[in-house]
Amino acid sequence: MQLVIEAKPYLMQDPHPPGLSSILSSEGPLCEVEQWDSDEPIPSKELERGVAGAHGLLCLLSDSVDKRLLDIAGANLKVISTLSVGVDHLALDEIKKRGIRVGYTPDVLTDATAELAVSLLLTTCRRLPEAIEEVKNGGWTSWKPLWMCGYGLTHSTVGILGLGRIGQAIARRLKPFGVQRFLYTGRQPKPQEAAELQAEFVSTSQLAAESDFIVVACSLTPATKGLCNKDFFQRMKKTAVFINISRGWTWSLDGALEAGLSYHLAWCLSSVMFEWTQALQLKGRCCESGRPVPGLGQWSDCSCWTGCDDPRATAY
Amino acid sequence: MQLVIEAKPYLMQDPHPPGLSSILSSEGPLCEVEQWDSDEPIPSKELERGVAGAHGLLCLLSDSVDKRLLDIAGANLKVISTLSVGVDHLALDEIKKRGIRVGYTPDVLTDATAELAVSLLLTTCRRLPEAIEEVKNGGWTSWKPLWMCGYGLTHSTVGILGLGRIGQAIARRLKPFGVQRFLYTGRQPKPQEAAELQAEFVSTSQLAAESDFIVVACSLTPATKGLCNKDFFQRMKKTAVFINISRGWTWSLDGALEAGLSYHLAWCLSSVMFEWTQALQLKGRCCESGRPVPGLGQWSDCSCWTGCDDPRATAY
Repeated sequence: MQLVIEAKPYLMQDPHPPGLSSILSSEGPLCEVEQWDSDEPIPSKELERGVAGAHGLLCLLSDSVDKRLLDIAGANLKVISTLSVGVDHLALDEIKKRGIRVGYTPDVLTDATAELAVSLLLTTCRRLPEAIEEVKNGGWTSWKPLWMCGYGLTHSTVGILGLGRIGQAIARRLKPFGVQRFLYTGRQPKPQEAAELQAEFVSTSQLAAESDFIVVACSLTPATKGLCNKDFFQRMKKTAVFINISRGWTWSLDGALEAGLSYHLAWCLSSVMFEWTQALQLKGRCCESGRPVPGLGQWSDCSCWTGCDDPRATAY
Repeated sequence: MQLVIEAKPYLMQDPHPPGLSSILSSEGPLCEVEQWDSDEPIPSKELERGVAGAHGLLCLLSDSVDKRLLDIAGANLKVISTLSVGVDHLALDEIKKRGIRVGYTPDVLTDATAELAVSLLLTTCRRLPEAIEEVKNGGWTSWKPLWMCGYGLTHSTVGILGLGRIGQAIARRLKPFGVQRFLYTGRQPKPQEAAELQAEFVSTSQLAAESDFIVVACSLTPATKGLCNKDFFQRMKKTAVFINISRGWTWSLDGALEAGLSYHLAWCLSSVMFEWTQALQLKGRCCESGRPVPGLGQWSDCSCWTGCDDPRATAY
């Protein structure tokens, strides 16, 4: 049996997860393993070469497993395991058609992703990146009561797009900060999950209009692709803080710019998928409208964005 | 009556707090008001000139109201109001001796300070400042599963020096992040306050040794001055995150450096009182051992510090 593993940084950890230890055991591997030996993503040509004839594939969310790759793999391929919660990089219909089983990692990173979402929210609303910059560039001359004040969560309204496992975990963490109202959207109301948070099921446009803090925590599906568009950003309060911890394609930078938000933007932490951010950098927009951060939530892409025309913020 | 106000940035807000609105009313002020007209702190000479003969003084924590100033003010002075929770800048013994009443602002900023403390903790443990830097300097080349991973709060031990209003508010906010144990120190156990958090009263050295995250939230008193000294830092886990939201003098940079922590330091956000940070900058230590941030908690000074010899962090 041949197993292709494209997850070196994970596997190289000591100790290996128990299942993998037995596969890679010094007493002799249970199967032939080919492992991509670099921190950088495997080039598609290399993946194609390795997967041809393999029985299993352990991949990352950065590997697109499409019809073409499945055709190259051939009839041997029986199992794909992805080191991710999301499966939007896998052509599930094609995979099902071939009777291939898929493993993924639901709930493994709920805590980490929710924690990172709250970190991004707080670091944005409390203006920590700017503050650090001010010290470094000498802008901090003395203590002043209102200098660099941000926005607090106490008595605020928090809107969550997608009250799934991660959305709920975020809300649970934010509740003791004194949030007054939780709003949420989704395919349908979730009365049981919402009860604990007294969260109100609303339309996307109501959520955009009434929230002080907006967190995008939904899966990427055809229905959520580009959900936060020009109309969404136009409805947002000018002082709202926008955090995206879902896939980058749930929101549209062009939409934000067309809504005139770039004019008001004080700063932006954006860490959509690398390719996408690279495209932004090429367009020179990152420097213009804020700061991107890389995807620190491991299997999540995280970004936050503050639309703010408060003079305390635009002074920056 | 003459009132000296050294709090321009606050008073210039619109609307004024009700009490001050009547003092400054357009129908004619109730008393003669002299107000320092700048964002920068009032020079001591100017404060001395203004306070001489005044009946009241509204000051900031950056103004030292000592015996000398009280002598200059003279017998007219009946009331001092400070825009701060802390009163360590006021010579209380001298003030009492003269029968002067003091107003301060307890609990006004409990929420904001606790929120900022959690923000500093999360931004440090989730490595957001470094992450932003990596994108800006081109260090972020592609998504990698373990790159820039920080430390999570789930199953962690959090130690809080001082379980007062702010310490409790911090713990309450951190609890839903999955903290396993809360430890605290103080003058004496606080069984009632600790019960909600199942917090354990321990010695300072036990707290230093067993905590994954340490938050200093005590008042500055003779007993807490320099509390976090060389011995304290030597006991800390090398992976611990140290956050100080109390006055800067509760901890000693020299102590941290002597404990060898500078060698392990991955980064540091420090925002002790300006004068103190300036001294550090002069010593060139800030650039060496981390990043300071200004006092964003308004009437609190906030710093966080990560002692970390994990290769993932020291790689930075």
